[in-house]
Amino acid sequence: MGMEKYNNMDGKPSEYLYPPEILKRLDFDKSPAKFKPKISAANPGEDWMAVRPLQRSDYDKGFLQLLGQLTSVGNVTRKQFEDRFTKMKQSGGYYVTVIEDTRISKLIGAATLTIEQKFIHNCSVRGRLEDVVVNDTYRGKQLGKLIVVTVSLLAQELGCYKMSLDCKDKLIKFYETLGYKMEPGNSNAMNMRFEEPS
Amino acid sequence: MGMEKYNNMDGKPSEYLYPPEILKRLDFDKSPAKFKPKISAANPGEDWMAVRPLQRSDYDKGFLQLLGQLTSVGNVTRKQFEDRFTKMKQSGGYYVTVIEDTRISKLIGAATLTIEQKFIHNCSVRGRLEDVVVNDTYRGKQLGKLIVVTVSLLAQELGCYKMSLDCKDKLIKFYETLGYKMEPGNSNAMNMRFEEPS
Ligand SMILES: CC(C)(COP(=O)(O)OP(=O)(O)OC[C@H]1O[C@@H](n2cnc3c(N)ncnc32)[C@H](O)[C@@H]1OP(=O)(O)O)[C@@H](O)C(=O)NCCC(=O)NCCS
Ligand SMILES: CC(C)(COP(=O)(O)OP(=O)(O)OC[C@H]1O[C@@H](n2cnc3c(N)ncnc32)[C@H](O)[C@@H]1OP(=O)(O)O)[C@@H](O)C(=O)NCCC(=O)NCCS
Repeated sequence: MGMEKYNNMDGKPSEYLYPPEILKRLDFDKSPAKFKPKISAANPGEDWMAVRPLQRSDYDKGFLQLLGQLTSVGNVTRKQFEDRFTKMKQSGGYYVTVIEDTRISKLIGAATLTIEQKFIHNCSVRGRLEDVVVNDTYRGKQLGKLIVVTVSLLAQELGCYKMSLDCKDKLIKFYETLGYKMEPGNSNAMNMRFEEPS
Repeated sequence: MGMEKYNNMDGKPSEYLYPPEILKRLDFDKSPAKFKPKISAANPGEDWMAVRPLQRSDYDKGFLQLLGQLTSVGNVTRKQFEDRFTKMKQSGGYYVTVIEDTRISKLIGAATLTIEQKFIHNCSVRGRLEDVVVNDTYRGKQLGKLIVVTVSLLAQELGCYKMSLDCKDKLIKFYETLGYKMEPGNSNAMNMRFEEPS
């Protein structure tokens, strides 16, 4: 995978949300997930596949359409996308991670790790898994596992004392195989909704 | 409640984590919570009580000791506390909110709202309720309700499409009275723990 694959039309590399090198360091043997065949973020199994941070140019690679398979996204303009990208980068703590099919320059999977700063546990940090999605025509090929394990190992690498997620009943088993647990007496996710998502 | 109550020893007001004025605007009639007698962030019922953002000087008002009633905090130095305060303020999105007993200059309640930036739902924002605690000698006097409703209304005021929390079984009823719901088939909180909290 040459770096040229991530370049803009003008030949300049597109800006990353976070440094891509971290993903190459992740040790997939640390995860309880079983991959057959064995794959990782550095070696996703196919030479046309790349696991990497979100880039500013991903508006043109179907990022929002991919999220549309998870929930409503609405009509987000390029400016809105770029403004949100900039804000996330300035805040720090946003690790939006994607899988690209570099043959067609389209994103086919995504997951977000957010890092929350705490005072408890010696001013520790806590990770959260958010907005996990794999393009429907690519499902059942380990990509869901790949992207979730990638951001989970990233949370550990960044020093989180735990990583949390909320999910539907039918996905509990999936996340259990990746090392997530329901904690007896302490696994209730509650919500207050203020308005209908657009 | 004169502003002098929030001053440092040298008479200068201590720095707030976020602008305190927002709390005065919150409309407690919007919350489904029932208060008897009626109280709010602006009028917490006793003239020795103040609901306000965390301040840089709160290291001296027992903030970490209060959190110690919720979970392990460890031996956090003043410098660590201030560095974390500074980082939270720079990142934005951290609304640590406290109740002070101004007679003794001690914090007696706390709750944190964090704001997560999203691409979904038209680049919306999502709130999370974290680290809710009331000093044990002050429990059962509506202060838990007061601090949770305060940050929940704050989330709405800041434009969140929803506010989320994870909780123990025994607190589900408490949060239900404040407007939080378990969503059928979609209310599982899962965790992966990387190391024992210190
Ligand atoms: C959930 C999702 C990301 C999984 O992606 P995927 O690429 O199909 O997953 P994988 O191929 O890595 O599957 C891994 C394992 O989980 C299982 N699995 C995947 N999705 C599942 C589901 N919805 N229900 C039950 N099991 C599921 C697979 O059968 C597979 O099991 P195996 O290893 O024993 O064969 C994908 O289905 C998706 O995008 N769904 C829509 C969005 C969504 O629901 N996101 C999660 C919000 S909580
Ligand atoms: C949970 C907590 C913040 C509540 O504070 P509080 O000041 O005692 O709460 P309030 O006085 O506002 O109580 C409001 C109502 O909830 C009920 N309630 C409070 N804590 C409860 C509990 N642990 N279990 C069941 N009901 C509870 C009260 O009985 C009261 O009911 P009422 O309005 O019908 O009289 C406090 O008990 C606490 O700090 N606990 C330890 C830390 C903790 O568990 N935090 C939450 C993590 S998920």
